[in-house]
Amino acid sequence: MAHIQVPEGVPGIRSLVMYRPETGKSLYQLAHVLLREESPLSSAERELIAAFVSSRNNCMFCMNSHAAAARCLYDEDAPLVDEVLKDMQQSNVSDKLKSLLAIAAQVQVNGKAVTQQHIDAAKALGASDREIHDTVLIAATFCMFNRYVDGLATLTPDNPDDYAKMGRRMVDVGYVLPSAPVK
Amino acid sequence: MAHIQVPEGVPGIRSLVMYRPETGKSLYQLAHVLLREESPLSSAERELIAAFVSSRNNCMFCMNSHAAAARCLYDEDAPLVDEVLKDMQQSNVSDKLKSLLAIAAQVQVNGKAVTQQHIDAAKALGASDREIHDTVLIAATFCMFNRYVDGLATLTPDNPDDYAKMGRRMVDVGYVLPSAPVK
Repeated sequence: MAHIQVPEGVPGIRSLVMYRPETGKSLYQLAHVLLREESPLSSAERELIAAFVSSRNNCMFCMNSHAAAARCLYDEDAPLVDEVLKDMQQSNVSDKLKSLLAIAAQVQVNGKAVTQQHIDAAKALGASDREIHDTVLIAATFCMFNRYVDGLATLTPDNPDDYAKMGRRMVDVGYVLPSAPVK
Repeated sequence: MAHIQVPEGVPGIRSLVMYRPETGKSLYQLAHVLLREESPLSSAERELIAAFVSSRNNCMFCMNSHAAAARCLYDEDAPLVDEVLKDMQQSNVSDKLKSLLAIAAQVQVNGKAVTQQHIDAAKALGASDREIHDTVLIAATFCMFNRYVDGLATLTPDNPDDYAKMGRRMVDVGYVLPSAPVK
């Protein structure tokens, strides 16, 4: 049971944005701009970074839902998602994306854990300032979402089908507030 | 020097919202709703939670600027801010606020570090669901801001006067995007 009285049966972040739509609106707007709007990183790559950081924060709800969204977006390359979650360095993503995921892993630990070496390595592999910026902000943002969702002990489904449906909705509908907020 | 080309001489988060105003807008909206709009916690208490979490993340920019804002808002009780940053349990804030700061300290570690005992202790001291919700979301949000600011190695002034001015502006003007975004 959640630590506070959120709508029953509603999982993760959705129960929290329904509990407090005023903050929910800004949070969903941020997720939308960050994961769907213009960026040199594809939405698939951005959802993968979100799932990867959530995995390192041990946040099962965010990891499973964003991994499901990434699988939809990677389409026939969907196995890449599980490779990265299992062992990023051994996965078949590009070296540039590996260097960005390595930066995301440092952000998960602490902002100051990102060193000039991590940045130089990414730039040497062709990463632009905007790619580095978006990676750091996505990683930082999921350090927030993961703590919000788990810090209030929200409902975490354990059926993989539930996440597959969520991932499909996140791709088709995007990040929009549930239409009937429950008080 | 920052890891990416942000406007020179602009400190911390301001350089980042000028670098990418699209995400900056959502981030400042979130800070405004969370720290200034309606809540059972005063703005002083909310700025104190922000400074306290930033201190635990070792983010000097966010700690000093939000501590300065909290000092302005606490007015004649301003010494409370430094007491909390030095040793929260020995400070003169209320037992209820101590129990909420203890929850914020757990969120800083990881969402799952918030246990039923932490929640029960806060509720026994009179904390409402909304106070617990806002505490967890403020703590989570500063785990994001701290990582964003430090993960990109933004400018961190070392003159206390600079922070006193920032704190004053954060109280008088609030969280609004710099008026002339520099590309």
